[in-house]
Amino acid sequence: MTPVSFEVIKVEKTFGARLGRLITPHGVVHTPVFMPVGTQATVKTMTPEEVESLGAEIILSNTYHLYLRPGAEVIREAGGLHRFMNWHRPILTDSGGFQVFSLASLREVRPEGVLFRSHLDGSTHFMGPQESMAVQEALGSDIAMAFDECVAYPASYEEVEAAVERTTRWAEECLKVHKRQDQAVFGIIQGGVFPDLRRRSAQEITSLDFPGYGIGGLSVGEPKSMMYAILEELRPFLPESKPRYLMGVGSPDCLLEGVKRGIDMFDCVLPTRIARNGTVLTSRGKLVVRNAIYARDFRPLDPECDCYTCRNFTRAYIRHLIKANEVLGLRLTTIHNLYFIFRLMDRIRQAIAEDRLLEMSEEFYSRYQATEGGEENF
Amino acid sequence: MTPVSFEVIKVEKTFGARLGRLITPHGVVHTPVFMPVGTQATVKTMTPEEVESLGAEIILSNTYHLYLRPGAEVIREAGGLHRFMNWHRPILTDSGGFQVFSLASLREVRPEGVLFRSHLDGSTHFMGPQESMAVQEALGSDIAMAFDECVAYPASYEEVEAAVERTTRWAEECLKVHKRQDQAVFGIIQGGVFPDLRRRSAQEITSLDFPGYGIGGLSVGEPKSMMYAILEELRPFLPESKPRYLMGVGSPDCLLEGVKRGIDMFDCVLPTRIARNGTVLTSRGKLVVRNAIYARDFRPLDPECDCYTCRNFTRAYIRHLIKANEVLGLRLTTIHNLYFIFRLMDRIRQAIAEDRLLEMSEEFYSRYQATEGGEENF
Repeated sequence: MTPVSFEVIKVEKTFGARLGRLITPHGVVHTPVFMPVGTQATVKTMTPEEVESLGAEIILSNTYHLYLRPGAEVIREAGGLHRFMNWHRPILTDSGGFQVFSLASLREVRPEGVLFRSHLDGSTHFMGPQESMAVQEALGSDIAMAFDECVAYPASYEEVEAAVERTTRWAEECLKVHKRQDQAVFGIIQGGVFPDLRRRSAQEITSLDFPGYGIGGLSVGEPKSMMYAILEELRPFLPESKPRYLMGVGSPDCLLEGVKRGIDMFDCVLPTRIARNGTVLTSRGKLVVRNAIYARDFRPLDPECDCYTCRNFTRAYIRHLIKANEVLGLRLTTIHNLYFIFRLMDRIRQAIAEDRLLEMSEEFYSRYQATEGGEENF
Repeated sequence: MTPVSFEVIKVEKTFGARLGRLITPHGVVHTPVFMPVGTQATVKTMTPEEVESLGAEIILSNTYHLYLRPGAEVIREAGGLHRFMNWHRPILTDSGGFQVFSLASLREVRPEGVLFRSHLDGSTHFMGPQESMAVQEALGSDIAMAFDECVAYPASYEEVEAAVERTTRWAEECLKVHKRQDQAVFGIIQGGVFPDLRRRSAQEITSLDFPGYGIGGLSVGEPKSMMYAILEELRPFLPESKPRYLMGVGSPDCLLEGVKRGIDMFDCVLPTRIARNGTVLTSRGKLVVRNAIYARDFRPLDPECDCYTCRNFTRAYIRHLIKANEVLGLRLTTIHNLYFIFRLMDRIRQAIAEDRLLEMSEEFYSRYQATEGGEENF
């Protein structure tokens, strides 16, 4: 019996978008859901209470980072990641695979895993399905992800094919070694932008009957249209009864487009990362508040927003804080961006419930545009 | 009529320590008071609500920094500093003198002020009593400080004497040019560590009948015993009916010793600055939480503290955050340190009210020691 279960409450009429409930040892999550990222056991700049009050029901944390610092044993001794960071709602941990392949140097891929050098101090480490499961069991997340190989974009057919094969083999190994009864393991589908490799990976991974499926290797540099095409390609191969998690996505438009293609879960550093660069999300598109034109602009970041930041502070003040390297500036933009994303997800769930996702989507796009820069928002 | 008034409610029996009320356009302040420092229109890492909920009744902000960035005109246009930063309790602004003499380069002292180079971009500026008053009037603080010359320690008698003379002349000039009816100007006494120059400065400045007096040029590197001796020297020259503000102090022991010597107001970056270096104040002395010995210490920073940080997080977690350069680490240590200082001031005021400051002081010193490092705490 899996400790994490999923129920589809409603399938929306136009796109087949799904409203669901993900039940975990630390509580219920309403899907489609956006998971903010707490890379180093903290959603950057925020307290756990703030993250919760903004609307988060589940957060993601990074196995690779926590394994390197403070180390899995420290967190195990603390009583697990929930207690360590004082977040008592669900946590999903990634497998470490993405960071091993993107952040670490050296990277010698072997049948049983990857030898790599830490990006922090150059020390040598080995991580494969066994190690990833052991670390995630020490962290005690509600959902652990199977150890996968995520290839960069672009990559050759042969490279992607090899990664698909390894990912399947490692997924089997993860299931074999995983022990914790209060933690679910989700499989990950790879295959790059090659439809037949995606189909193959989906068939192989879903045949292992995980309680949920991640779609990895997207949002890694390919055009958005290509990502949407892959999601459509994959859709028939994903069991209706299991949650579908599009990893590393995303921007407001990608969240909406993902939901339309049947996705239930998302995570992305975007709202918190761009906040720290002085960029905020608004109902009209992005706004780079650190720009000089806002030096004497005494309006809120988004006049239509009622978040703490917009109720209390002006663009001029926030710009000043960011230019002066003041932490409060990062906090205020992070609060605003997370609030924006969670309210968007609220609207999406509401629209699915009321069978008017098409109207909601049209309304969203009629206003949401790149107000600065090109047609791509991010 | 001054917009800021002061009343002494009680004089404590052993030391003559004072309990008072400072009444300002933005509300009442209970003295002895500690003012946290919001250098760049923010108490570093904190929201205004947090600063208030920790116990601050008044904050200090820095004229020099705000003049350079974002500029006095931006803040004037925003409706003043209170509105700009969304802090609606009293604000005291310093004169800019201390920073002009300590941070800026170039520094050509002229009869009417100081020519200096910005520490930010090397641009040239001039600030004297006239400019300082104009900037502070634009900021709209409740209490503006007269523009003074603060000499470093050690300094020759001749240098200090010249600074005392200039400070008196500039104080007269400040009174002459200051216009704002809803802002008080406090005079500043200089004189370094020379008793006769301190007496002279006190006599000259108090003869100008300011509604309050700052004691400047202390806590700039001289031994604590020397500072205490100067405070005792000055005491007979300070009018009983006016608030006495010991500028740039300080550490827990200096706050207590200052109160014993009749001081009513203090400000210092210490609690917020050491917090950002991973050092916290506890009832037993300082604790450098970033040290390796705390990596697996799952106790709160101070087991006797009931601040938000100590109720929710361990030393191990906070150390991890600080080692990983996570903003939340700085927030948690800042919350703890400000809470510690405000509770200390609560205890001091309570002890004055109950005529047991001697007992409170003995109790404090019986526990508060340097737990790490030498006999000096900071």
